[in-house]
Amino acid sequence: MKRLSEKQIINQILKSLSVINKNNLLSDDITTVKVVNGILAFKCDMFVRSTDAPRQMKIWQMARKSIVSCISDFACKGVKPLASLISLGIPRNFTQKDIVELGRGFAKAEKEFHINIIGGDTNESKDLIIDCCMIGLVRKIIKRRGAKNGDLIITSGPFGYSSIGLNILQNKITTKSNLRNKAKNSILMPNARLVFGLGLINYATSTMDSSDGLAITLYELSEYSKKMFVIDSLPTTKDIKEFVKNKRYDIDKLILYGGEEYEIVATIPKRNLKKVFALARKSKCKTLVIGHVEKGKGVFMKQNGKSKKIERYGWQHLI
Amino acid sequence: MKRLSEKQIINQILKSLSVINKNNLLSDDITTVKVVNGILAFKCDMFVRSTDAPRQMKIWQMARKSIVSCISDFACKGVKPLASLISLGIPRNFTQKDIVELGRGFAKAEKEFHINIIGGDTNESKDLIIDCCMIGLVRKIIKRRGAKNGDLIITSGPFGYSSIGLNILQNKITTKSNLRNKAKNSILMPNARLVFGLGLINYATSTMDSSDGLAITLYELSEYSKKMFVIDSLPTTKDIKEFVKNKRYDIDKLILYGGEEYEIVATIPKRNLKKVFALARKSKCKTLVIGHVEKGKGVFMKQNGKSKKIERYGWQHLI
Repeated sequence: MKRLSEKQIINQILKSLSVINKNNLLSDDITTVKVVNGILAFKCDMFVRSTDAPRQMKIWQMARKSIVSCISDFACKGVKPLASLISLGIPRNFTQKDIVELGRGFAKAEKEFHINIIGGDTNESKDLIIDCCMIGLVRKIIKRRGAKNGDLIITSGPFGYSSIGLNILQNKITTKSNLRNKAKNSILMPNARLVFGLGLINYATSTMDSSDGLAITLYELSEYSKKMFVIDSLPTTKDIKEFVKNKRYDIDKLILYGGEEYEIVATIPKRNLKKVFALARKSKCKTLVIGHVEKGKGVFMKQNGKSKKIERYGWQHLI
Repeated sequence: MKRLSEKQIINQILKSLSVINKNNLLSDDITTVKVVNGILAFKCDMFVRSTDAPRQMKIWQMARKSIVSCISDFACKGVKPLASLISLGIPRNFTQKDIVELGRGFAKAEKEFHINIIGGDTNESKDLIIDCCMIGLVRKIIKRRGAKNGDLIITSGPFGYSSIGLNILQNKITTKSNLRNKAKNSILMPNARLVFGLGLINYATSTMDSSDGLAITLYELSEYSKKMFVIDSLPTTKDIKEFVKNKRYDIDKLILYGGEEYEIVATIPKRNLKKVFALARKSKCKTLVIGHVEKGKGVFMKQNGKSKKIERYGWQHLI
């Protein structure tokens, strides 16, 4: 029997559900429901140890990361999480020490992002499962659709560390200790741009979380707004450039299809650029302008005066 | 290393979380957050195939039951579910046919309870995991606390079928086909008393879902309200009485500690009894008056003029 991809599974299940739902469904980083006085934002993100955790990842880091994924989606929509629930599947061989460590990871995330875990559910399962579910109640959110001609395209930080980090953790490559730590931490201790995202609500015309890869994120944003996205310079850093040069990797592929970065990709009107950079400084984000929005469709990269179409696919193991 | 119980795991994790949360935490069947215009109700319930599904249970029944558990908690608090998310952990060997069946189960639950599944998350895991997360936005909920002296204690239906059903499915016992089907269905196709629960909001002083067993439910309600609960007649049926007589089981134990019944246990002022029975008829519930509330503490059973203390523990395998 053929194995189905995540998207195929979702589509198959959506087919069964009632038509009303599908029409009501706002496909965005978080699910929203209009209520009398605003918008209820709602998101679940499941962490599965056997598929999501490299073997070096500590239990408290898994607990923390399960929350970071959810926070990242709230962040990019400019929504402050109001409350969180955690559903746990705990393996039989988990010890009291493991449980204490799990709790410590949740507590760390609570403090880091000023969130409240107020309930949940506990079960026994073969795998360690952490399903984080968050809600927020807001006046507005930043949608995936809304980019205007002339808007600038920004990212909340550089790309590339996660893909390098994953390969280091899988012992496929080695590198200098400075880059090694940054790269490993982007997998083991990822950050979510919550403060930056909450501020963007005043400045951005469209946003999306980039965890499926930069290329696919740019395509989704361009398609929702029915605009052409032109990339002038990929969001990277000196140490990544140096690394790929030494290893002879394709830097464009690393940045565009590396994946698992919890950065925000946004479009902003030019007039807001100064304010966005001030917000980035305050939020400790290394925000970069990577391109601009034009009339048309597709995602293109300008290099040495030439325009090249970026291929549309999600993240993959690259190295 | 010692294995921890569910309660111990929860307490251990709660210890790590910030004090503010613990104080804010309303311990009830659903988690609630006060917002400007009402109360946000919020609940996750995880279904794990390896521990929650007897081998006779079909995939669509698992999908349906994962939703019924969550609905049952909303039902007993008088809260209409506004939206649901489903986080899935799908085993590698799941076929397209299995996914279609899963979707069919969700669709069946949507229609049965008039709910909307509007999003979710899909992952790969060793076990089939279905985490159902629901929200509601209401003016008020029925709490666990609020029972008054003289109130009647009611259940939305009889108890005992689930325990018999589980034992039939595990091939430990056999019985007549009529009871067998009812008993098996109470595990494979449980109901949730949503219409009855939504109506109770106008009549009940306190409520709780009984899925942890009738005895523990009565104890929790009595402790929250600081009242004595006196049981005059256990909620059972003719066919269950006949069954236990033939098999020489202890009927009191079966009813009190059978567990996994998705019935509502509620206290109501005497003056509301007629209206509650009218509601029960409309909701197709076989509602029973089982006792009354008095000044004092503890849960007692009156039998042949004598009063006997009911032991306080949750459901267990009984037969």
